[in-house]
Amino acid sequence: MSEKVIKAALLGLGTVGSGVYKVLRNQKEEMPHKIGAVVEVEKILVRNLKKASAKVENPEILTNDWKTILEDESIEIVIEVMGGIEPARTYILEALNAGKHVVTANKDLVASHGQELLECAAEHNCDFLFEAAVAGGIPIIRPLKQCLAANHITEIMGIVNGTTNFILTKMTQEGMEFAQALALATELGYAEADPTADIQGLDAGRKMAIMASIAFNSRVTFDDVITEGITQISAKDIRYAKELGCVIKLLGVARNTENGIEVSVRPMLIPETHALATVNDSFNAVFLTGDAVGDAMFYGRGAGELPTASAIAGDVFDVARNIVFECTGRIGCTCYKQLPLKKADEMESRFFLRMHVSDCAGTLASIASVFGNNNVSIAQVIQKNKEGELAELVVVTSKVKEGNFNDAMMIIEGMSVVQKVSKVIRVYGD
Amino acid sequence: MSEKVIKAALLGLGTVGSGVYKVLRNQKEEMPHKIGAVVEVEKILVRNLKKASAKVENPEILTNDWKTILEDESIEIVIEVMGGIEPARTYILEALNAGKHVVTANKDLVASHGQELLECAAEHNCDFLFEAAVAGGIPIIRPLKQCLAANHITEIMGIVNGTTNFILTKMTQEGMEFAQALALATELGYAEADPTADIQGLDAGRKMAIMASIAFNSRVTFDDVITEGITQISAKDIRYAKELGCVIKLLGVARNTENGIEVSVRPMLIPETHALATVNDSFNAVFLTGDAVGDAMFYGRGAGELPTASAIAGDVFDVARNIVFECTGRIGCTCYKQLPLKKADEMESRFFLRMHVSDCAGTLASIASVFGNNNVSIAQVIQKNKEGELAELVVVTSKVKEGNFNDAMMIIEGMSVVQKVSKVIRVYGD
Repeated sequence: MSEKVIKAALLGLGTVGSGVYKVLRNQKEEMPHKIGAVVEVEKILVRNLKKASAKVENPEILTNDWKTILEDESIEIVIEVMGGIEPARTYILEALNAGKHVVTANKDLVASHGQELLECAAEHNCDFLFEAAVAGGIPIIRPLKQCLAANHITEIMGIVNGTTNFILTKMTQEGMEFAQALALATELGYAEADPTADIQGLDAGRKMAIMASIAFNSRVTFDDVITEGITQISAKDIRYAKELGCVIKLLGVARNTENGIEVSVRPMLIPETHALATVNDSFNAVFLTGDAVGDAMFYGRGAGELPTASAIAGDVFDVARNIVFECTGRIGCTCYKQLPLKKADEMESRFFLRMHVSDCAGTLASIASVFGNNNVSIAQVIQKNKEGELAELVVVTSKVKEGNFNDAMMIIEGMSVVQKVSKVIRVYGD
Repeated sequence: MSEKVIKAALLGLGTVGSGVYKVLRNQKEEMPHKIGAVVEVEKILVRNLKKASAKVENPEILTNDWKTILEDESIEIVIEVMGGIEPARTYILEALNAGKHVVTANKDLVASHGQELLECAAEHNCDFLFEAAVAGGIPIIRPLKQCLAANHITEIMGIVNGTTNFILTKMTQEGMEFAQALALATELGYAEADPTADIQGLDAGRKMAIMASIAFNSRVTFDDVITEGITQISAKDIRYAKELGCVIKLLGVARNTENGIEVSVRPMLIPETHALATVNDSFNAVFLTGDAVGDAMFYGRGAGELPTASAIAGDVFDVARNIVFECTGRIGCTCYKQLPLKKADEMESRFFLRMHVSDCAGTLASIASVFGNNNVSIAQVIQKNKEGELAELVVVTSKVKEGNFNDAMMIIEGMSVVQKVSKVIRVYGD
């Protein structure tokens, strides 16, 4: 068995970087057998040399100078785990231009600049792999590009943000309100000090852009994704959902339809019987439908030191195999189509809406007639919780055009019998 | 984009073979973009030329003579979907010896002769891929060999037989007895005319042997797998399981422990809260635990024309990429360890047992003392269903050594207060 040594540099030694360092060390004896070589971390780029020195066996491998890595010709693989757009983007482009292969977990970057980076990699016959950028440790990019490559994927959806899934799980299982569940998530380390990117659906949106691009073979960037966060979801919404046999999840949904691609991240009601409804706490899952495979789901840890490192190290092993077999660049960009985005008006959805209305005869009839006039058909109505003169009305529509629904809502919000529309949430399914 | 043509031969045109033929045709326009070549089915080996001619566009590609395929040097990939050990084994060895790459869905063959076939492939720098041999369309072999390669997998388990999962689902959801559910499965085409390999756990055992070999990097053959079928499971067992918060599934469980590898397929009680408990009907799922990734699950269709073809075509695409990049044989046998098998006596499990006992004071105490004397501790007892002088006693043990449990059962079965031990079923978990 060859003892070829392949040298790598790690950019960043935070939570994920430390995980990669550990996992590669744990696999040292296995690597010659698994990949025909040993990958050694030769240099680690950090900001604070002193702080980082406690985290590694030999502090001499630490550096705060990118150029010493870039100019070290013995380094063949760069593992970027700094996060953020810059300087990560510049470093990666420089690495690829220098003929180094790159593995990254940087979803922000791949979701916005994926095309540029993949094209640069292709130009230099380099690998640019990013399995860890979506759903952490769960294998999804490689299964899409290889195992499921013979499918036309029509839909891919997922619970791809652990923070919000933890919050919604607590709200569902323990009746907490959003603020309380967020506070708990922060206390337990599931939410960052600034949770905006998570709770507003931006983090999930980036992951959906990446997955949709690969699943549909057509570039979708983060700007193309419609995002809506979970900050407005209340314990009451969740209770109503339960009455309807549903749970509320922050769902990323990407569809490849005849009228174009649509990608969104939104809180949605999903039937309790759907496989994704049982994905709780900080777990992630991706559910997809292909013309050959049918329905398939991938479930696991979407974040964390070691799960993310598992995905990164898997990519590093693949690069190493490609180096050994002289076939780097074997699988690059798979976006060879240019499919249009679907227009917002043409999107279709079912809607759950909750409003306070005058509790008088004829209210429901007049609301129903507005919906009817706009081609919005009603699937279910719950009327309850009389509060003085007002009643709370919950309406679930059939699948309708968003444009039609919005037209109807414009009128309904102006009706004298309607005091307030308190919530509109989409419902997954037909 | 290159229009390189790679020629393939299909051995067999049954359900799966027809699926492969369809999926490759559906992907014809996509292939140049996805893999840099077009894979064309040049010849199909069938037994009955006339019967098969209705299934293909151009019947001239049909042959009943293996030699015409073997000797056709233009054919680079052989796709074996005949099933069974012979002549599949001989054909595959001859193909590999002739430098042709092989993709197969043949679990019987891989579970028994995997080593021989992989060694032959390696000798000729050929690819030998078998993603479809385990869990049909669900990507699992490639994720294990690549995405999760940087993990030490400690446990891999699965519901990997759709027929038995359909039967147990009907028994659970509709209270059917085994025979009735089997009859329904046969009627609906989920069970074959001779269902032995499914209902006795043999089919699942073959898949577990293959998965364990890859997960633990040490060869496990079908003969090493302990198998037990579901024919003795009754609707009553399932009702008791429900009282205990469990469902009964035919579970393949493979563990890599300090004392060796253990692989079994058995009906087991599993808590309703476990992700595998919600895998119903003919769906399959594989659940694994790795030191880096933590828990992960893969779910989908484990059989059927198109799902199986999805996995086969994914493998064919990978071979084609390897041909284009001149790196065939890139990932071969990964069994580089020789781990021992755990001795049966040293295996540990929890047990559910159901027996009829004399309904007199002291019965439970005397049974409990036999268990206690043999280091079997009892976790739970349900006594009910008085039938004349007899009472039904359900005991669930803690995790105990199989040897100790068997010793205790030898004594208990001979006790005068015990009329009959009607069922012993293992319970998953600690």
